[in-house]
This record gives sequence, C-alpha cells and structure tokens, in this order.
Amino acid sequence: MKILDGKIVKAQILAKLKEEVQNLERMPGLVVIQVGNDSASEIYVGQKEKMANQLGYKFKHIKLSGDISQAELEKIIKEINSDQSIDGLLVQMPLPKHIDSKKIQNLIDCDKDVDGLSDVNAGKLTHNVDTLMPCTPKGIMDILDYYSISVEGKNVVIVGRSDLVGKPLASMMLNNNATVTICHSKTKNLELFTKMADILVVAVGKKGIITGNMISDGTIVIDVGINRVDGKLYGDVDFESVKDKVSFITPVPGGVGQMTVAELGQNVLKAYKKRKI
Amino acid sequence: MKILDGKIVKAQILAKLKEEVQNLERMPGLVVIQVGNDSASEIYVGQKEKMANQLGYKFKHIKLSGDISQAELEKIIKEINSDQSIDGLLVQMPLPKHIDSKKIQNLIDCDKDVDGLSDVNAGKLTHNVDTLMPCTPKGIMDILDYYSISVEGKNVVIVGRSDLVGKPLASMMLNNNATVTICHSKTKNLELFTKMADILVVAVGKKGIITGNMISDGTIVIDVGINRVDGKLYGDVDFESVKDKVSFITPVPGGVGQMTVAELGQNVLKAYKKRKI
Repeated sequence: MKILDGKIVKAQILAKLKEEVQNLERMPGLVVIQVGNDSASEIYVGQKEKMANQLGYKFKHIKLSGDISQAELEKIIKEINSDQSIDGLLVQMPLPKHIDSKKIQNLIDCDKDVDGLSDVNAGKLTHNVDTLMPCTPKGIMDILDYYSISVEGKNVVIVGRSDLVGKPLASMMLNNNATVTICHSKTKNLELFTKMADILVVAVGKKGIITGNMISDGTIVIDVGINRVDGKLYGDVDFESVKDKVSFITPVPGGVGQMTVAELGQNVLKAYKKRKI
Repeated sequence: MKILDGKIVKAQILAKLKEEVQNLERMPGLVVIQVGNDSASEIYVGQKEKMANQLGYKFKHIKLSGDISQAELEKIIKEINSDQSIDGLLVQMPLPKHIDSKKIQNLIDCDKDVDGLSDVNAGKLTHNVDTLMPCTPKGIMDILDYYSISVEGKNVVIVGRSDLVGKPLASMMLNNNATVTICHSKTKNLELFTKMADILVVAVGKKGIITGNMISDGTIVIDVGINRVDGKLYGDVDFESVKDKVSFITPVPGGVGQMTVAELGQNVLKAYKKRKI
C-alpha cells in the first residue's frame, strides 16, 4: 500500500505557480465574495487568502451581510465582471436561502469562474474543451498525474454525483479515456461496482461507507470525504479495513482535501492567461 | 422478446404536438441552415421540413454556398437570433472544414438551440436544469417512458461517448437515477460491462459490434446505430444473435432513428414556450 500524498502534490503546484507569477506583467487578481457569517466559510476564505498572499496574487475579500438582496449581490458581481484587474471571482457557498445560487454562479463571467461551476464551463468540460474546471476533481487528476497513474482504459468507479465533484470528475476521467461508472444513493448492489473498480473514487460525505469487503485487491482508492466526528477528520473510506488491499490510497486528512486551494491558485493563473489572449 | 417500436412513440408525440400547436397564438418558427450540397443533409433537412409542415410550424430552409465565410455565416445566425418570429435554429452538421463548427453551435441563442449542442445547454443538462436537450438521447428516454420502463436504480451501460448521443444520454440517465457506465473505444473487456447491463445502449456506428454472447438474458437493448451496407440498414447490435436473450429491443430501422425528428418538433415547441415566459 502506498499513500498518495496530497501535501507533496500541493507543494509542487504552489511552487511552480509562485515561480511563474513572478514573471508576469501584473499581479493576477482574485476576489472572494462571502455572504453572511458561516464559520466554516470564514476558515475556507482564510485558506484562500493565505494561498493568494503566498503566490503574490492581488486578493480581495468582499464580506456582505447575510440579508443582502439578490439584486444587490448581482450588482456587485457585475462590477467585478467588468473590473479589468480581476481575473478570478468566487462566491463562497452556501449562500443564504433567499439567494438564487444557480443564478449567481451563472452570472459570474465564465472566463473569471475559477470555481468552474457555471453551466457553460460544465458544458465545455463535457465537450472536452479546455476551460476553468472545478477544483476538487481537478486536484484528483493532478494527484494521479503526479504519481504517474494513467487512467486510460482503466475502470474508474465514482461514488457520488455532485455538481462539485462526481459529475465533473466523470467528464475529466472520460476525457482521459477511462471507462467511467457513476454510482450514487439509488445504486443497487454498490459493492458489485466498487469491486470491479481499478480506480475507486468516493465522494459522498458519509464516514467509512466503503469497507474492505467492498473492494478488490490492488484497487487505487481516492477518498474525497471529509467528515468531522468529535473534532477528528474521517474519510468516506474505512482506511483501516481497506489498507491491506489497496495499491494506492489518498489519506484523510492529507489527501484530496489538500488540493482544492492549490487548484484554485492554478485556475486564477489560467484565467489570467485566458484573458490576456 | 418485445420490440420497442419507435414509429408508435413518434406518432404519439407528433399527434400531441399537432393538437397543442393548434391552440397557440402564433406559429412556432424553425429555421434550418444548410451549408453546401451534402446529399445526406438534403434528406435530413427534407425530413425536418416535412415534420414542420405536418405540425403547422413556420419553416425556413436557408441554403448557403459551401464556400461561405465564417463571418458571413455568423452574421446570418445573429440575424436569426434576434428574429422574434423564430423559436428554433438548427445548423445542419457537418459543416465544411473551413468553418469553426463549435463556434457556430455556441453562437446560436441558447434558448433557440433546438439541437441542444451548445456548451451552455450541455452544462444545464449536466446540472439537471431543464433545458433544450439533444434529440436522439431524448428520443431514447421517451421510448423507455412510453413503454413504462423506469431507469431508476437500473444499471445502464452506454457504449459510445459522442457529444450527440452518449454523453447527453449519460446525463439524462443519471438525472433519472440510473447507475451509469460509459464505455468507448478505449474500454478494455467491453463484454464485462455489457453483460452487467440492465439497459444497454449502443451508439458507436459500427454494424453488429454487440453480439449475443456479450449480453445477459433479459437485457433491454437500445440500438442507436444506423449503418448502411449495400443499401440496407443495420444497427450496432447483431439483432439475430441477441433476439432470443433480450427482454426488449429497438429495431433498426424503426427504433431510435424514428425519434430524432419528433424530438426536434418537441424542442421547437419547448423553445416557443420558454421564450413566451
């Protein structure tokens, strides 16, 4: 069993980015909009700010009251869309219930959509057109790439079909010539599929739902789950029971979760370059 | 073995549409742009015109010289985008090589994109937002629906990953709670997957690549292939060798191929209603 170490891949990506950014004509600009006072959001925005500072990006955190109206929020997004010094715009999710989140995500200029969650960027990814892609699945592809694990012709089984991870990852895997199966809460006989996987990706947010008896020897396991129980982090995969069967596995913490902010950094630079063309 | 008869489903859809169209304030309008003199395109455009006339749609066939420039073609599309009497615009594929087809498809107003091939409509489908969807996969869903075959929880295996059929069908199946596997030319041990399918959809365009030994008893088979050999039509599935094993099958001809033009008719009406809102 070999650990796929997200920290190492993250460090390499950030180091490369930092070097590249030093040679740019101007600082790439990232704006993060936060609505309300969600404590988890505070932490996530903080991590993004730290990354931006580390890379030498211009960073702006716009913190808005939780009772802002849809129209006011839209006005702010439109202003940032037309601000030439800003390359990436991200609206921290979740938004308050009175805000139409889908509309907000699709209002962001698709060339500044560094979360890759707009319809048009999802469609480009589906159509295998290079675009800004969601950070977490892109992080998975980069981990596999770092460890020289090719997905071509592999049987990739993805458990979870979120817009954030499962669906975009399925497109990325397909674009890289994997055979892809998407399983979810309505799947019958889940273990039938997980046992057939060459690469098993689990992204459902339920602690330890994949156990050793559900996988075959030599499986590569990517655990996207981050489940906090009594202050400790657990993945969706029961590490102890699978560890003697897997060939490679991403740990929790220290695996996929490490990648998200580094991928955001990559997307900001990609957006910068796209806008320069 | 029961035949899933595309002709019956098509007739029902067209009859419903015709009735609904009679009660509209104005005629829904469909424009088909054809570039060059491809003989297959002539036939396809003719089928669309026939459908439009049958339903009482306003139909316009714009036939352009094969040496039209990208800029001229774009200008015509923009004019139709802003023509308030037109609800659906379709550019017959394939386009001559000097034309950027992807750019053309994405230039069509997404609310008039009755082929459902634009990035934004593909992304909406991925995100399970109701939108204009590609006709052939939508036709498959409607055939299954007509015969009361639910896909929820079923193991759906799709062979072929085109933007036109395989990928949008995977999204439709997933949105309807099927477990979905996408196989293609790089898939190893294809029969391993086809044998596990509750519903097997084959859309690769190779005569008879699926044979009886590759499927399990009771499989529902949807054959999207239309392969013309010596003037006769064949599917991607070897009908003779599978017919005693399948529970249901779409024949070729008379199956999925029947649906495409009827689904275009549905999309034009859907676009009409969307634009009215």
